[in-house]
Amino acid sequence: MSVPNSLDELIAALRCLPGVGPKSAQRMAYHLLQHERDGAQRLSRALLAALQNLRHCTRCNAFAESEICARCAAPRRDASLLCVVETPADLNMMEQSQLYNGLYYCLMGRIEPLGGVGPRELQIERLIVRASGGEVQEVILATNFTNEGEATAHYLAEVLRARGLKVSRIARGLPVGAELEYTDAGTIGQALVERRPL
Amino acid sequence: MSVPNSLDELIAALRCLPGVGPKSAQRMAYHLLQHERDGAQRLSRALLAALQNLRHCTRCNAFAESEICARCAAPRRDASLLCVVETPADLNMMEQSQLYNGLYYCLMGRIEPLGGVGPRELQIERLIVRASGGEVQEVILATNFTNEGEATAHYLAEVLRARGLKVSRIARGLPVGAELEYTDAGTIGQALVERRPL
Repeated sequence: MSVPNSLDELIAALRCLPGVGPKSAQRMAYHLLQHERDGAQRLSRALLAALQNLRHCTRCNAFAESEICARCAAPRRDASLLCVVETPADLNMMEQSQLYNGLYYCLMGRIEPLGGVGPRELQIERLIVRASGGEVQEVILATNFTNEGEATAHYLAEVLRARGLKVSRIARGLPVGAELEYTDAGTIGQALVERRPL
Repeated sequence: MSVPNSLDELIAALRCLPGVGPKSAQRMAYHLLQHERDGAQRLSRALLAALQNLRHCTRCNAFAESEICARCAAPRRDASLLCVVETPADLNMMEQSQLYNGLYYCLMGRIEPLGGVGPRELQIERLIVRASGGEVQEVILATNFTNEGEATAHYLAEVLRARGLKVSRIARGLPVGAELEYTDAGTIGQALVERRPL
């Protein structure tokens, strides 16, 4: 291959993006070099800055630039409600429903036995500690209505109930198999209002 | 929006990639931060290195790390043949056909009147100077068989013939509307063999 090295390397590096194969990586590299040099500069800086500045909020486990994120630190939020979501994207969608004023815990994944992701890999004990602090009166499980999300919800319901916590699940207002990230905020709000105790 | 700034910035920066919308950018950012931190590091470095090291080869106009790329500098190549392609990706596909041992000129685009891309924007004069140097006996037009590619080929054929150069077009072995980047090397080789004088 007579393509220059730093071009090879850029094409190879772009492969780390989800859903980007060899052809797309090549196309992206040529596009950046030919038409988006400023954008490429910006992307390079943004990647470094994000890696340097972002850590997991010690309370909600979502990405934050400080030890405790602005959302967890906000005084006007109802600390007696803890909503458990799979990803930060899901968390953003919950916020957009504008029907929830409690706090969150972001699992950063879901229990996937086939994928080798169990309670230990998800550090479920961190959630248990967070929920058992005394402040939290109710844990709202807002994992996706996929098989993995449901399995995760059932597992969490058991371990949290075992610690005397009130546990609820957002209503199945969402079609089975749907994912929060791709559901409209109205539907999510409805499901939140109609949550049922487990 | 309560997403931390360097995360906002990363999501915004990822939008500069072709075909990446807000949802994909968000998904890419979370994926990189959660599962591909090394890959993100590598991508950041690769972007900077590519921007710093890559320039256009003064002979073929493709990306190179030196003033003249290795391909143009190769002594065993037939300098009497000059193949004109639209993009470096097309050039790579020509090479993979393994039926061409001449040199290249990469337009880095195509004449698109609707897109405001004319001969001046493509710096066609650079190609003319390159082809009129005396070494080149035949110019092989290998632009795509799309409307823009065909228009570009016809324009180039006129201006190059006007300078007394022999001009040929790769055979329409490719289906109309096809693009080199997505054609198998065998078909491209066939089209190269069956090129017809204009």
